[in-house]
Amino acid sequence: MRFDLILFGGTGDLVWRKLMPALFQAFRHGSLPTDGRIVGVARDDLDDEQYRALIKSRFDEVDLAKRPSEEEFSRFAARLTYLRMDLSNATDYTHLAAKLAEHQADTVVMYLATAPSLFTIFCEHIGAAGLNGPQVRVVLEKPLGHNLASNRAINESVRKVFDEKQIFRIDHYLGKPSVQNLFAMRFGNALFEPLWRRENIANIQITIAEELGIEKRGAFYDSTGALRDMVQNHALQLLCAIGMEPPINAHADAIRDEKLKVLRSLKPWTTESLRQHVVRGQYSAGTINGAQVAGYASEPGVGQGSQTETFVALRTEIANWRWAGVPFYIRTGKRMARSSAFIEVNFRPTPHAIFKTPLGSANRLVIHLQPKDGLELHLLAQGQQNRGQTNAETSATVQSLSPVQLDLDFDKRFGSQRVGAYERLLLDVIDGRLNLFVRSDEQEAAWRWVEPIMESWKHDEGPRLYAAGTWGPGAASAMIARDGFCWPEEC
Amino acid sequence: MRFDLILFGGTGDLVWRKLMPALFQAFRHGSLPTDGRIVGVARDDLDDEQYRALIKSRFDEVDLAKRPSEEEFSRFAARLTYLRMDLSNATDYTHLAAKLAEHQADTVVMYLATAPSLFTIFCEHIGAAGLNGPQVRVVLEKPLGHNLASNRAINESVRKVFDEKQIFRIDHYLGKPSVQNLFAMRFGNALFEPLWRRENIANIQITIAEELGIEKRGAFYDSTGALRDMVQNHALQLLCAIGMEPPINAHADAIRDEKLKVLRSLKPWTTESLRQHVVRGQYSAGTINGAQVAGYASEPGVGQGSQTETFVALRTEIANWRWAGVPFYIRTGKRMARSSAFIEVNFRPTPHAIFKTPLGSANRLVIHLQPKDGLELHLLAQGQQNRGQTNAETSATVQSLSPVQLDLDFDKRFGSQRVGAYERLLLDVIDGRLNLFVRSDEQEAAWRWVEPIMESWKHDEGPRLYAAGTWGPGAASAMIARDGFCWPEEC
Repeated sequence: MRFDLILFGGTGDLVWRKLMPALFQAFRHGSLPTDGRIVGVARDDLDDEQYRALIKSRFDEVDLAKRPSEEEFSRFAARLTYLRMDLSNATDYTHLAAKLAEHQADTVVMYLATAPSLFTIFCEHIGAAGLNGPQVRVVLEKPLGHNLASNRAINESVRKVFDEKQIFRIDHYLGKPSVQNLFAMRFGNALFEPLWRRENIANIQITIAEELGIEKRGAFYDSTGALRDMVQNHALQLLCAIGMEPPINAHADAIRDEKLKVLRSLKPWTTESLRQHVVRGQYSAGTINGAQVAGYASEPGVGQGSQTETFVALRTEIANWRWAGVPFYIRTGKRMARSSAFIEVNFRPTPHAIFKTPLGSANRLVIHLQPKDGLELHLLAQGQQNRGQTNAETSATVQSLSPVQLDLDFDKRFGSQRVGAYERLLLDVIDGRLNLFVRSDEQEAAWRWVEPIMESWKHDEGPRLYAAGTWGPGAASAMIARDGFCWPEEC
Repeated sequence: MRFDLILFGGTGDLVWRKLMPALFQAFRHGSLPTDGRIVGVARDDLDDEQYRALIKSRFDEVDLAKRPSEEEFSRFAARLTYLRMDLSNATDYTHLAAKLAEHQADTVVMYLATAPSLFTIFCEHIGAAGLNGPQVRVVLEKPLGHNLASNRAINESVRKVFDEKQIFRIDHYLGKPSVQNLFAMRFGNALFEPLWRRENIANIQITIAEELGIEKRGAFYDSTGALRDMVQNHALQLLCAIGMEPPINAHADAIRDEKLKVLRSLKPWTTESLRQHVVRGQYSAGTINGAQVAGYASEPGVGQGSQTETFVALRTEIANWRWAGVPFYIRTGKRMARSSAFIEVNFRPTPHAIFKTPLGSANRLVIHLQPKDGLELHLLAQGQQNRGQTNAETSATVQSLSPVQLDLDFDKRFGSQRVGAYERLLLDVIDGRLNLFVRSDEQEAAWRWVEPIMESWKHDEGPRLYAAGTWGPGAASAMIARDGFCWPEEC
């Protein structure tokens, strides 16, 4: 298989931090097709050798499972080539055409690791230059717009020159083995389906918590916020994977059809629910792992008096036969107590208790996504049975149950066989697998649902402060407590 | 609490092998009520000190978690006393009356660790001597009869002098933490109930396999066999625990009512099903753990041309709404490949497969009873995803799933907190808890169901030979294979 992988934004952060290391791992694992070029594209004045040297120097800064030897890197670097090009300059596309003509690949992947503001102009010029043939696949990185209208505008300009089948919208969460495994778990096992419904499940909680603050991305983050950065994409994709109906097959569109149904089934917001069921927060100064960290307001790049949220907690429902009335909680934030992404499926308590059970001990399945990747099934079992707990008249054993858990650690089970998110996704693009990419109608449905939240924030009193190193503002706890439930760290 | 625990058969195997060590553990754990005597009763001419010395010398032969010090044993031995008595001699019961009068206990436990042939005469004399007051509890060890009629005869003679509430029929399997935990697991967790039915479960397999042969019990075993020794009691009790409906509460009679319903729901035998669904076997010479062992026919105490079975495999069904049509397989044997008791709950496969799955990989829950005590939940998950498995036209991911398992080891989780079977059961008798003891109607229902099997064996061609160290005769595999299933070691 003969491919060209064109990395626009070829000298940028995403390329050297994520894409090049992922491609190198794929190369090392022998899964990168041999007859393929990787073409870095940027405005910098570099030749191939300089580009290779740049990537090599950057490799020292990234986390690779094992440092490459000189010889190994050289073999990989032989695949790399560079093209100097300004995406906003129409004539530069002739250089691109010439570069592509050199290799005559069957598959040309154009990865837009650039500022999203360039997407529209890129598509226009690519179309004008006739470089949008059926062998071309275009990969778009988030953010694809900042609201429904801008998302639609981008999608429209891309779809003017590319067919939906050629468009690979990255949500790198979907590339994580733990997230892919959600699908496998739910639809490869007969065990979960009978349990997976309102009759048995009390609530489902999705947490994506980061210890990190906004690092050097202050300006970007301040115009984005947690809702756009995490909820509209990653968290809703997780909610879809957990809540969707079984797809008719494992084809991309069958899966995406079902995810779309979930997004369209999300309970519409009302003035009341926007007030009661959405909490936004912003971190103030605090302590992470024993070290003092600054508040969001003092981070570089953040505007004076910024109202940008670094934390969102919300409650929604999927209004269909399977889930009606079951609360789905989402929370995500920066500068939280711990970096941890997980989903808790909380089952209803036994309808009729014949044993003495510890408080709040209903069964639950915890799906760890990161940093741990595994399952925990929390049950009750009989541990110690003490004397003196007998009701002798009825000869009842007042048996006390104790919490126990069944464990599965996917990293231990599969170890190094598992591939990273970007490695997986890049190979999928090259191979033409759309399963783990987001379709435009999904994206638009997600924006349609988050937009009322953004609207409501224009008129509210602003985000609630929470100390860095905590689990967010108290209002997030109060929100879930009103339903009689709790976040795991408070249960 | 003031109790007397009278151990009839006080110098016999059961007492020094099982009961005394269990009592000692309870003493050590501080769970044996302080104001209680343990009275050994036998025909040997011993005084208290000699009896204590006998028990002490026997302790060296049994498996105690930790050897007692001289001082510790002395404190325990201070509880021991001895009574010389011949149970078949009416006048000896006056000695017993005198011994009991000394202590005036609130609770008198009479443990019949004797030959069952003495049960009837014992009851007559006890009744005649008026020693069957409401403070008395009688403990009966198996075998309680060798068929329905003899079981009924024993039960009748016991119930002439004792109320059912005073009668503690031991099935020591019910005292095992792993078996008690079956009830806790099923009825203390909401998770299992929705799965626990014909819609989701393909079959259930109960295996009680022993590497041991018949040891020095040739004469006893030869007149008993595996059906009476293991199936009629232990295996059927396990089947009840797995198959029963949720009891209305945890009182002894509520649980026993539900177990009885299971036994009464067992599909009645027909000539056809007796031929097709019961396999009996007898071990021939073979190899266990690399050592040559003799065949059953050459074991000391075994009659010439014995037709006694050392292995039984059978298939039955619980004819009710929950289980109709679901095969329950039971197998038990001596000189098997491995000592292992476990229950496999085999779930149905996914009704619609959208992933590529390894053959025979339906979900299953393995409940290990011994020597391991724990749970294994076998699922499928996504492990490695190889390149080159794509159907590019439909962009289907031909995803291969791999078997994974969630584990829980109760010994690790609860460690030394767990008490042994006889310790548990003895404390339950002293405390008056009947939950883990078998009611007469249960026992009779079990005999009623196994009797047609014994009848049918009078006219068949005898047991099939299987080599020691294997999983039994091939007919046991054929039996399950006809249903399209397999024993775990053959799957």
